[in-house]
Amino acid sequence: MILSALLTSVGINLGLCLLFFTLYSILRKQPANFSVYAPLLVAQQNSEQPRNFNLDRVIPSAGWVRRAWQPSEGELLTRSGLDAVVFMRIFVFSLRVFTFAGFVGIAILVPINYSGNQLSDGSDLPNRSLDSFSISNVKDGSNWLWVHFCASYGFTGVVCYLLYSEYDHISSRIIDYFYASKPSPHQFSVLVRDIPVLPNDSVHENVGRFFSEFYPDIYLSHRVVHRTSKLHALINQVEQVYKKLAGFKLNRTASNRERREGFLGLFGRKVNVIEHYEKKLEDLQEHIRMEQSSLAGKEVPAAIVSFKTRFGAATALHIQQRIKPSEWVTEQAPDQEDIQWAYFSSSFLWQWVSNVVVMIAYIIITVMFLIPVVIVQGLANLNQLETWLPFLKGILRLAFISQLITGYLPNLVLQLFLSLIPPVLIILSSAQGYVAYSRVEKSACVKLLWFSIWNVFFANVLSGSALYRVNVFLEPKKIPLVLAEAVPAQASFFIAYVVTSGWTDMSSELLRLFPLISSYIGRLFYVKDDDNVEIPSIPYHSQIPKILFFGLLGITYFFLAPLIIPFILIFYCMGYIVYRNQILNVYASKYETCGRFWPIVHNSTVFSLVLMHVIAIGIFVLKKLPLASALTVPLPILTLLFSEYCKRRFLPLFKAYPAECLIKRDKEDQNDPTMQDFYEKLATAYEDPALKSRRYPQDTETNTYPLLHDTET
Amino acid sequence: MILSALLTSVGINLGLCLLFFTLYSILRKQPANFSVYAPLLVAQQNSEQPRNFNLDRVIPSAGWVRRAWQPSEGELLTRSGLDAVVFMRIFVFSLRVFTFAGFVGIAILVPINYSGNQLSDGSDLPNRSLDSFSISNVKDGSNWLWVHFCASYGFTGVVCYLLYSEYDHISSRIIDYFYASKPSPHQFSVLVRDIPVLPNDSVHENVGRFFSEFYPDIYLSHRVVHRTSKLHALINQVEQVYKKLAGFKLNRTASNRERREGFLGLFGRKVNVIEHYEKKLEDLQEHIRMEQSSLAGKEVPAAIVSFKTRFGAATALHIQQRIKPSEWVTEQAPDQEDIQWAYFSSSFLWQWVSNVVVMIAYIIITVMFLIPVVIVQGLANLNQLETWLPFLKGILRLAFISQLITGYLPNLVLQLFLSLIPPVLIILSSAQGYVAYSRVEKSACVKLLWFSIWNVFFANVLSGSALYRVNVFLEPKKIPLVLAEAVPAQASFFIAYVVTSGWTDMSSELLRLFPLISSYIGRLFYVKDDDNVEIPSIPYHSQIPKILFFGLLGITYFFLAPLIIPFILIFYCMGYIVYRNQILNVYASKYETCGRFWPIVHNSTVFSLVLMHVIAIGIFVLKKLPLASALTVPLPILTLLFSEYCKRRFLPLFKAYPAECLIKRDKEDQNDPTMQDFYEKLATAYEDPALKSRRYPQDTETNTYPLLHDTET
Repeated sequence: MILSALLTSVGINLGLCLLFFTLYSILRKQPANFSVYAPLLVAQQNSEQPRNFNLDRVIPSAGWVRRAWQPSEGELLTRSGLDAVVFMRIFVFSLRVFTFAGFVGIAILVPINYSGNQLSDGSDLPNRSLDSFSISNVKDGSNWLWVHFCASYGFTGVVCYLLYSEYDHISSRIIDYFYASKPSPHQFSVLVRDIPVLPNDSVHENVGRFFSEFYPDIYLSHRVVHRTSKLHALINQVEQVYKKLAGFKLNRTASNRERREGFLGLFGRKVNVIEHYEKKLEDLQEHIRMEQSSLAGKEVPAAIVSFKTRFGAATALHIQQRIKPSEWVTEQAPDQEDIQWAYFSSSFLWQWVSNVVVMIAYIIITVMFLIPVVIVQGLANLNQLETWLPFLKGILRLAFISQLITGYLPNLVLQLFLSLIPPVLIILSSAQGYVAYSRVEKSACVKLLWFSIWNVFFANVLSGSALYRVNVFLEPKKIPLVLAEAVPAQASFFIAYVVTSGWTDMSSELLRLFPLISSYIGRLFYVKDDDNVEIPSIPYHSQIPKILFFGLLGITYFFLAPLIIPFILIFYCMGYIVYRNQILNVYASKYETCGRFWPIVHNSTVFSLVLMHVIAIGIFVLKKLPLASALTVPLPILTLLFSEYCKRRFLPLFKAYPAECLIKRDKEDQNDPTMQDFYEKLATAYEDPALKSRRYPQDTETNTYPLLHDTET
Repeated sequence: MILSALLTSVGINLGLCLLFFTLYSILRKQPANFSVYAPLLVAQQNSEQPRNFNLDRVIPSAGWVRRAWQPSEGELLTRSGLDAVVFMRIFVFSLRVFTFAGFVGIAILVPINYSGNQLSDGSDLPNRSLDSFSISNVKDGSNWLWVHFCASYGFTGVVCYLLYSEYDHISSRIIDYFYASKPSPHQFSVLVRDIPVLPNDSVHENVGRFFSEFYPDIYLSHRVVHRTSKLHALINQVEQVYKKLAGFKLNRTASNRERREGFLGLFGRKVNVIEHYEKKLEDLQEHIRMEQSSLAGKEVPAAIVSFKTRFGAATALHIQQRIKPSEWVTEQAPDQEDIQWAYFSSSFLWQWVSNVVVMIAYIIITVMFLIPVVIVQGLANLNQLETWLPFLKGILRLAFISQLITGYLPNLVLQLFLSLIPPVLIILSSAQGYVAYSRVEKSACVKLLWFSIWNVFFANVLSGSALYRVNVFLEPKKIPLVLAEAVPAQASFFIAYVVTSGWTDMSSELLRLFPLISSYIGRLFYVKDDDNVEIPSIPYHSQIPKILFFGLLGITYFFLAPLIIPFILIFYCMGYIVYRNQILNVYASKYETCGRFWPIVHNSTVFSLVLMHVIAIGIFVLKKLPLASALTVPLPILTLLFSEYCKRRFLPLFKAYPAECLIKRDKEDQNDPTMQDFYEKLATAYEDPALKSRRYPQDTETNTYPLLHDTET
């Protein structure tokens, strides 16, 4: 790629981003779109925009940028919780890293690279290849390479310092958050799995006996888990039917109230829709009642046990209960909202086996992902289309169309397959049997990160057959040289990747194109229901890997092709504003993990640094400066030691609170008169929602539906 | 090596062993050697042998074998503790494994190998190479190799089953032992490191305040650690001087009581020895008193904290105390006897850094060990000796002497260097800052095991330059093929190694040649002092790796050259009897680790299995049976999964006791009237012996030496 081509691409994409931003600033002012662009504010009845038309509504403005910029970290914390703050820290951290990298890269490395003349083709600036700005242009054996060597040491030092201070900052935030939090059930409870099932004895009695015997002073209550996946499915069905019914009753004319029974309402005899759905609803509720009453026997050998103090719960959590470590396994109880009963696995052995199976499936998916993609891309090429759809032959022969198809179709297929990956990974992680959805998400996040590193970074760098690529990693000795040859060659591809994929991602995140379209379609076909705005939660598992991947690109290319840094900086600046805006207006977190995602960011950054070092070791050999190569060897070792130190210093806090905090809070609670109420609530906090009574709103024409009675009280 | 040569070697070594055993059976009956061969019985005043001469004393007998064989595991447990029982389980386990292996190997594999004729040289049985009995003799691509394939699967299954049942057996022994044990201070205490030092505040007060605040109900007392290495050295000096003095006073004539002051007592003016030593003793004691009084200020930021219940101690152990995980780090308190204050490192960071440094030093020692050995061997060869010591020229030219030197000198040099390794590893492990000597020993044990595997197994298998060997492990893909080519070629070497080194080791362990000689020398030059018999403890760190290494040889060669199995079986049979005898007569354990060594045995066996599988994968490729090779690939994966499962299932018990056991014992103690006494003792249990009062026995002519007063009460 030559410089002018890059500038053109940057221009086009910058234009696109501006267009998206402008569109956003107009669309968000339309009252019809409030539920898309500010569902959080709508839900809080806080949407200040005027509903009557005025000129201001069609003039683009940048007020949203100011509003997104203004709130302090403290405000963000109170409005959106700790997870959102930690999420934003990724941007702050990355901006700091790449501001330093940009300064060193552009002011020092680029001039050295450009004056190297190893690749000199004598052309003028706009026609110079981008490689002239990369390390490839420095003469072999040149002493200028020592500047790159120093830069890699200095950059590593700065990144490690920032990593440390960020870990420290977030740790103190976690502690502050804990001290400021209200007593909540998950602080007082543990989840117990693998409760041995005794004949003639229910799990319920067994748990009660065990904890009253071993923890008589601090044991409060417990709740046995039931297998309710079928019940959950039924309740979902009821809710859907109920919604439809409410919609019909609300604003359809009498003619609309009839439709045919058969397929898609097109065939069969006509029925009154309302009567039809009411009948269906009653059947379902009868079904639910039966299911609920039969559940009492379907105990799962797992329970959530609550204690009188936080420290008591921590004691039960940290100490192995029984001689057999695979019985009475304790685990932190998740937030009530965070529990997913459906996939929950109650057995240690089963969880372990499914972990192994999931890991194998994940490795196969990751390593083999490109094979089906390449095959489908091959099927979807021009000639194949002509054979399958001969009537298109004429159109396909047009130069423009053929270029469009050959240029975009393979990319479209790739994007289609890629978009399938996050849901697949969520399913895989669910199958690992976590009880908390936040842990599923965290696990999927790590999986997606490695998936991207492998299938976007390594697949592009080592473009060849999949098998060949696996082979490189079986010969560790060759890795530095292979990477040093391949990675710089792909610099211009990744610069273009940042500009196209990265920037576009951010602006489309802002525009929320998919929810916007579905909202329009919804309004065309259904009633608009302002009270029932669905507030999405931040999809951490798909967003964090994306953001971290650009960090990986920036760090690995920092001293190879520093020209990439400004574009990454722009990406992070956009991300900072866009996500602040989205967090304030769109997303709400259903549960709080207290920044448990941060270690992923830390590990990913350390991996990027080590990858950079490995490439540096290879490149100094290629550039005939073996001394620099040898002197770089301690760098990855030191970095890994640093990371190990950080793990020991900070990681424990991301897993459980220390005794100091727990005891301090317990002491505060001793003098709190409201604690007695809380203990009473605690006893029923972890009831499975499927077993709870359920009342539907009475604002429609119909009467209240009979309550679903709780069978377990 | 041909069969007849092997048989000759076996004959010679069997003869040697018999000779050693016979010698032992005679020597052990001599009263003079009781302190060498039965120090344990002497100490217990239990030595039943008659002291007057009778004919029986010079006739070899096998009564000791019967006596060593008789005691049941329960008796062994009460007499020698759990560690000794677990140590003997290594032999029981190995005997089971190799009985099965021997049956399959000799009855099935050897006939198949022998009839293979791939290497047929037409010679008769005694002149057949040992390779005719190994897998190398099976024809390439022969279907008989499937028998080897099945044998490797079957053998792995049997070993895994035995591993599991052994882990299970030992786990239940540990629990029984805990339930049967008396309340002992280490069960009620934790070691706290990294106590932050506050200005104007002693560590002592800081610890007291912290635990009374956070654990008011269960905190009992604490004792701050002092830096007493200098004091320990002084006390050792005092004890040596005191011993010498006692010796002089006891039975030397007046003439012997004078000697010269100077070098080795040969020069200078004559002095009265007793006066000289008494003066020295007083000086030293004055020194100690000064040192003790100055110690009060030399507090180390670490303390041993005792609690009222075992469960309380476990709570403090398992939960992170402070927000900063590197402060107030808790660790299990070791047995009082097991503590080594001298090397104890009080800081988390310092311990971590020294761990890293020790690891690097260990890797360098292990990988580079053979380089100095080869150099010294080169220097010590015949020509060098002739150049250095020209007067020996005549002798060295004699064929017998030259053969002896060329044959034994390199081996002697290797053995010399090898014998240096266990002490060096103990020093390395000590530098890691463990507070318990048992942990130092365990760590040294693991280090020595890997050292042996690398420098005895791999160095012999991949005999080449050291650098070349390291290279193989940087190309994992090639490992199976390289090993499959190299390992079977060394079969006869390792058979000879088992017969010579293994068998000799066992018989010399029985004969205790070095203690025997030093006892004779001692009796020649010093007084014989029956009351002061030193009872050695089992040198686990040097013995376990040796025993496990032969297990590794047996497992890896099981299907390659099954002829090795009978010799290994004999080794383990001898070991079983010899070590039972030694444990009952010679060794006493100073402290109890409750079988903490077992996981090393487990891991080593799993490693051996995986090594066997890797070689199998390679050898089936070499033997042109790629399907068998591919089908072997799941075997190491399954084995590792099995091992991972065992770790989760059993390992926690080897680290800490579960709540169930602790609470049960605590409840029993509540009704025990002696507990109040125990609590009082507990408060002073962890006093540094260097700070305790010290009284020397008064049976010599001298008066009592003044008591060394404790400065910290």
